[in-house]
Amino acid sequence: MIAAASPGQPTPADRTAAPGALMAAEVAEQPAVWQRLLDDGRSQFAVAAARIREYQPRFVQFVARGTSDHAALYAKYLTEIVHGLPAGLVSPSTMTAYGARPDLRDTLMIGVSQSGGSPDLVQSLQVAREQGALTVAVTNKPGSPLAWAAELQLDVMAGPERAVAATKSYTAQLLALYLLCDHIAGGDGAAAAELPALGRAMLERDDAVAALAQRYRFASRLVSTARGYSYPTAREAALKLMETCYLSAQAFSGADLLHGPLAMIDPQVPVLTVIGDGVGGRAMQQVLPRLAEKGADVFCVGTPDAVRSASAGIELPAVDEALSPMLEIVPFQQLALHLALARGGNPDAPRGLRKVTETL
Amino acid sequence: MIAAASPGQPTPADRTAAPGALMAAEVAEQPAVWQRLLDDGRSQFAVAAARIREYQPRFVQFVARGTSDHAALYAKYLTEIVHGLPAGLVSPSTMTAYGARPDLRDTLMIGVSQSGGSPDLVQSLQVAREQGALTVAVTNKPGSPLAWAAELQLDVMAGPERAVAATKSYTAQLLALYLLCDHIAGGDGAAAAELPALGRAMLERDDAVAALAQRYRFASRLVSTARGYSYPTAREAALKLMETCYLSAQAFSGADLLHGPLAMIDPQVPVLTVIGDGVGGRAMQQVLPRLAEKGADVFCVGTPDAVRSASAGIELPAVDEALSPMLEIVPFQQLALHLALARGGNPDAPRGLRKVTETL
Repeated sequence: MIAAASPGQPTPADRTAAPGALMAAEVAEQPAVWQRLLDDGRSQFAVAAARIREYQPRFVQFVARGTSDHAALYAKYLTEIVHGLPAGLVSPSTMTAYGARPDLRDTLMIGVSQSGGSPDLVQSLQVAREQGALTVAVTNKPGSPLAWAAELQLDVMAGPERAVAATKSYTAQLLALYLLCDHIAGGDGAAAAELPALGRAMLERDDAVAALAQRYRFASRLVSTARGYSYPTAREAALKLMETCYLSAQAFSGADLLHGPLAMIDPQVPVLTVIGDGVGGRAMQQVLPRLAEKGADVFCVGTPDAVRSASAGIELPAVDEALSPMLEIVPFQQLALHLALARGGNPDAPRGLRKVTETL
Repeated sequence: MIAAASPGQPTPADRTAAPGALMAAEVAEQPAVWQRLLDDGRSQFAVAAARIREYQPRFVQFVARGTSDHAALYAKYLTEIVHGLPAGLVSPSTMTAYGARPDLRDTLMIGVSQSGGSPDLVQSLQVAREQGALTVAVTNKPGSPLAWAAELQLDVMAGPERAVAATKSYTAQLLALYLLCDHIAGGDGAAAAELPALGRAMLERDDAVAALAQRYRFASRLVSTARGYSYPTAREAALKLMETCYLSAQAFSGADLLHGPLAMIDPQVPVLTVIGDGVGGRAMQQVLPRLAEKGADVFCVGTPDAVRSASAGIELPAVDEALSPMLEIVPFQQLALHLALARGGNPDAPRGLRKVTETL
C-alpha cells in the first residue's frame, strides 16, 4: 500500500529507506519518464508551438533558478542556434525587487520550474504577461501557480520527485524544451525517439561510475567544464556534486575557464568535462592541452577517444548533439550519488537544504 | 626612463618589481581613471547615445568573457531596470562555433573587452552587424579589432593594464557602461561626479583589508553572494580570488544560493557578501539567517549595520545603488592582492595564466 503523502514530499517509508535510495530510483526512472513524455506529451507541444508561431516572437527570454536554470540555458542555445532568435536569461530581481516593467511585446517568456511554486518566478511571468509577452510555464506540476500565471503550460510529466537533488525532473525539462523547440521549427520530435533506449544503456554503467567515484572520495573541490549544448551539463554536474557531496564544484564554459579560473587548477583539483563528437566537443580541444600543462586529473564523459585520453571517464553513444545533454548528465548524477554515499552522506537529504523549489 | 614595451605587456622593470606591485598600483589608480573618463570621455557617450536613441533598440544583447562579462552583467541590470528593455548575455559559441545567424534587427549588441582582441567576440560583433544589430564596442583599446568591428566604439580610458588580474579596466568598464546608459536615458552622468572622491576613501581602507586578509590565509574554498546590481561584484570578487590566490571561489546570487549550493556552506567555507542600503542589499536579508544557521563566517562589504553583524567587513559609503559596484569591488581587489601575498603568491603573474584577452 502506498502511503498518502503530497507528491514531492518524502513519505514515512522514504525516511527509513537506505541513504540514496530515492535519488537512485529517480535516476533510474529517467528513460521511462522520457518515454512517457514522447508518447503522451506530444499534443501539448503541438498546441503550444502553433500559438507561438502565430505570435511570431522576435526575442526569447527564460526565467528559472537552480537546476531549472540549467535547463533554461540549454534551451537558450537551442533558440539561438535552431530558431535564430536572440535569447536571454532574465534576472528575476529586476522585475520583482527593482520593479522593472520592460516592454516585452514580441517577446516569448518561458518560465522553467520543477515545482512551479517559486514566488519570484510566478511574479516574473505575471509581469511579463502584463507587459505584452507570450508566456509559457514549463513545470512538473500542472495547476501550479507558475502554470496558472502563464498563457501556455507544458507538463514535463516526470511524476513526483522526492529526493532533494533534482534528477528526473531536470532531464524531463530538457526533453520538453527540446520538443517544444523542435515543434516550433516544424518538426515532430522524431529524432528523440531513440533517447529512452540510449538512456537505459547509460544506466547500465552505474557500477562503473560507482567504482570511479572512489577516485574522488578525498577531493574537496573540483571544476567542471564544457562548451555549447554541453555547457549546461557542466553547470548541472557541479550543482549535483555541491548539493550531495558538499564539494566546492565550479562550472565554466571552456572559453571562460581560460580567462582566469585556469589559475586555480592543479593536480589536486579534478576536472569533469563533456567532450562529445559535435561542435561543443570539438571546441573543447583548445582547452585540453592547457589542462594537461597544469597536471589536471580529467574525468570525461564523451567519445571513446576523449575518454581514452582522460584520467577516467564514461563513453557517450553517438547522438545528435542537441539531444546529448539528456544522456551526458546521467553519469554525473550517478557520480554525485555514489560519491555522496562513499563520503558518508545521504544524497536524499542533504544537510541544511530544503526542497526550496517546492515552497510557495 | 620608461622602457619601450607594448601597452599591457610587463616591461623588464615590471618583472623585477616586488610581487603585487603592478596590481597594487592599478587598484590605486582607479579614482584617477574614473576622473579621466568623467572629464575627457563625456562627448563619446553623448554621440553614441544619440545614435542609439535614433536606432530605437527593442532588445539589448551583451557579449563578453571573464571580468568583462561581469561588467556586461552589471549593464544588463541597468538596461532592464533603467531602460525597461529585455536584455541578454550572448553565448558567443552560438554564432562562432555553431554558425547561428540570428535575426538581430532592432537589437543593440554591445561587446565588452579590455583588449578588444578576443577573436570570438570580434566575430560575434561582425555577425551581429551583418544581421542588422546596432553594434557597440566598449574596450580599453581604441583601434582594436573589436572596436573596428563595431559601428560605435567607446574607450574606457583606463590606460595600459599590466597586471594579469584586471582591476582598473573593470571599474572603468562599469563606469563607461553606466555613463552610456545614463546618456541614453537623457542624463549627463552628473550623479557619478562623486565617485572619484568616494573611491579615494575606499582606498584608504587598504591597511584594514590587509589585516583582514590574514583571516583567510588557510582557506581553500569560499563562496561569494549578493543580489541585484551587486551580484556582478560577487562574481568579480570570486574571479579575482581564483586568479590570484588559487582558491575555489564560487559566486551565487543570493536567491540561487538557497536553491542547492547552500548545502556546501559550513564554518570552513567563508562567505563574502555585499549588503548595501539599496534594493539588492535588502533582498539579501532573507539569505543571512540561512548562512547563520550553517555557522558561516561572513565577510561583508556593506552598510555599517551589515558590517557590524558580520564576522569581518569594510563599510561602504551611502551612494546611489547603481553606482555602488564601482566602489564595492575595491575591498575585494585589495583582499585578493593581500591574500595572494600572504599565501606566497604573486598576483601580478598568476601561475599558468596568460593575459589571454590580450591575444588576437
